Amino acid sequence: MSEVFNFCAGPAMLPKPVMAKAQQEFINWQGTGSSVMELSHRSGIYKAMAKKAEVDLRELMSIPDNYKVLFCHGGGRGQFSAVPLNLLPQGKSADYIVSGSWSKAAVAEAKNFGEINVIEINQDTDNSSSLLDSSDWPLNPEAAYVHYCPNETVNGLEINTIPETNGVPIVADMSSTILSHEIDVSKFGLIYAGAQKNIGPSGLTIVIVREDLLGQAQIATPCIMNYKTAADNDSMYNTPPTYAWYLAGLVFEWLKELGGVKAIAKVNQAKAEILYQAIDNSELYSNHIQSQYRSKMNIPFWLKDESLNEKFLEEAEKTGLTALEGHRIVGGMRASIYNAMPLEGVQALIEFMQQFEKRNR
Amino acid sequence: MSEVFNFCAGPAMLPKPVMAKAQQEFINWQGTGSSVMELSHRSGIYKAMAKKAEVDLRELMSIPDNYKVLFCHGGGRGQFSAVPLNLLPQGKSADYIVSGSWSKAAVAEAKNFGEINVIEINQDTDNSSSLLDSSDWPLNPEAAYVHYCPNETVNGLEINTIPETNGVPIVADMSSTILSHEIDVSKFGLIYAGAQKNIGPSGLTIVIVREDLLGQAQIATPCIMNYKTAADNDSMYNTPPTYAWYLAGLVFEWLKELGGVKAIAKVNQAKAEILYQAIDNSELYSNHIQSQYRSKMNIPFWLKDESLNEKFLEEAEKTGLTALEGHRIVGGMRASIYNAMPLEGVQALIEFMQQFEKRNR
Repeated sequence: MSEVFNFCAGPAMLPKPVMAKAQQEFINWQGTGSSVMELSHRSGIYKAMAKKAEVDLRELMSIPDNYKVLFCHGGGRGQFSAVPLNLLPQGKSADYIVSGSWSKAAVAEAKNFGEINVIEINQDTDNSSSLLDSSDWPLNPEAAYVHYCPNETVNGLEINTIPETNGVPIVADMSSTILSHEIDVSKFGLIYAGAQKNIGPSGLTIVIVREDLLGQAQIATPCIMNYKTAADNDSMYNTPPTYAWYLAGLVFEWLKELGGVKAIAKVNQAKAEILYQAIDNSELYSNHIQSQYRSKMNIPFWLKDESLNEKFLEEAEKTGLTALEGHRIVGGMRASIYNAMPLEGVQALIEFMQQFEKRNR
Repeated sequence: MSEVFNFCAGPAMLPKPVMAKAQQEFINWQGTGSSVMELSHRSGIYKAMAKKAEVDLRELMSIPDNYKVLFCHGGGRGQFSAVPLNLLPQGKSADYIVSGSWSKAAVAEAKNFGEINVIEINQDTDNSSSLLDSSDWPLNPEAAYVHYCPNETVNGLEINTIPETNGVPIVADMSSTILSHEIDVSKFGLIYAGAQKNIGPSGLTIVIVREDLLGQAQIATPCIMNYKTAADNDSMYNTPPTYAWYLAGLVFEWLKELGGVKAIAKVNQAKAEILYQAIDNSELYSNHIQSQYRSKMNIPFWLKDESLNEKFLEEAEKTGLTALEGHRIVGGMRASIYNAMPLEGVQALIEFMQQFEKRNR
């Protein structure tokens, strides 16, 4: 079959060189005669690999020394509970910015663990989507933290500035943007990211947390969600998802070889630019998000003639362009173009979109 | 290198045919041109695989229709929290049988979520280990449930009868025994098992729960730990650990081809018998657990001359017999011989042990 470009929002495609290496050493890792997933997480060889993955991630993101990096079970939804359990003591409240589906889901979950102050920032009209500028968010200066989701995968909305919170710790769900462009980690109290978009397979979550925020977890915090327990035990209080950790390590190595986050950010910028341009220049496709809030990772677009949707998806699939169906909440199409999606994949999509438009005038 | 037999207690070795198949289809699964880990868990092809894994497990364990089978994130420790969160309502208490390290750890965690009644059953003397017979356990007839661990991997202790609880639901941590011998699921309220011993890689837990026990979760139950939420959404409320689920499915297929649980139980019985026999017949090795409580999955043994420990481990490793070091709590050696360990692996270990003994008289 011809090459497949997989535009799934997550679990998403992984870098081809990573997958080739993982396949090659699948049953005999580093001469052990075993798969990495068959080894004890407490063996020296596994721990060395695990540590290197952390060191590489620290280097890639320039993570300051006063931050812990945790490799946790579960995905983003696990963190929807873990964040308030660890950071929201009784008597305090937390601000939650709602900009789309995922930040809304985070609120629904957090409410079970403490007092949540919801701040909705969508500014939609009939034919445009936008967000309230972060300087206008009505933040509570006494909040335990401010939670937001810089990139909403379902809606294709991105908040591309870091809010000024005057010392209130910022918690960010970076599941879909981590490692896609440079960020200043020191501006955040906590960053979390489910792995299955820019890091590795599902079942692993990375948490980057400032040390002074540890140690205030609620009593009823499940041990596998307790950040301090994880930090004190190098994320091995319980058996971690060892294979996912290993694959994350390979992805970090791949990214370093490419030149790091700065280099991939340029590619990501180029990918998004040409795809939005193709959409805006067409008669058939549209995306009505105001340009400064357009996601660079998840690009939704709608066919003006929706009766063509099924045909579009079928023909795309035959061309090797898969998983382009939009999320059921918003319909239409969606191209998720995380780090692992090469420029050629986006070019192939644009070429197909243009041909499809011509054939269906 | 010569064939490796990996005796790790977990993550443990996986069946060789499973690993060969997984490697072969690693980057192109079912002709999709993608790895199974790169596909959406909501795609038809993934959901069909996931459902088949459940159906196969139901068949292997003869799981009655009034039980839900859940594929959850995390390992056994996650369930240490999830069980009381889901099954222990305010005003009730739960009985916890303590027979070793893992059941003790389950108690420490459960105490954060409700009232726990601890029942210690170890009956140790200077030179023998034994357990209180389940008919003598002082159970509370009003308990919300009774929790026990039928096989203690660290201690090598097995409870080989199902306790009579007069209607109180039994919750069993079967992480190290699931699928290793036939059990009557209908006797249990809930069975859980971290995957990394008899099922697949770490990061996945199987939960088998009687339907009438669902729906009473505490409010502060993290959504990814809520059994009813998982049951109502076919374990896909959140993105599951998709690759681990797939590998579990391959393991279930492999087990069915071998003849199912009944067939593997015979092999497991034979493996344990010859290894205990070799230990009991030797001058150098010992295991002082009373025979009826000896584990068939995790066989600890101690060298009478402990100064030989390091040499034993080094030479075993060179022979391709790996991960034989006992748990740090109990010392000595431990051979974990789950389903994936072939009879030849145990034979090779015995051969080595006998040669080592001869060389060190």
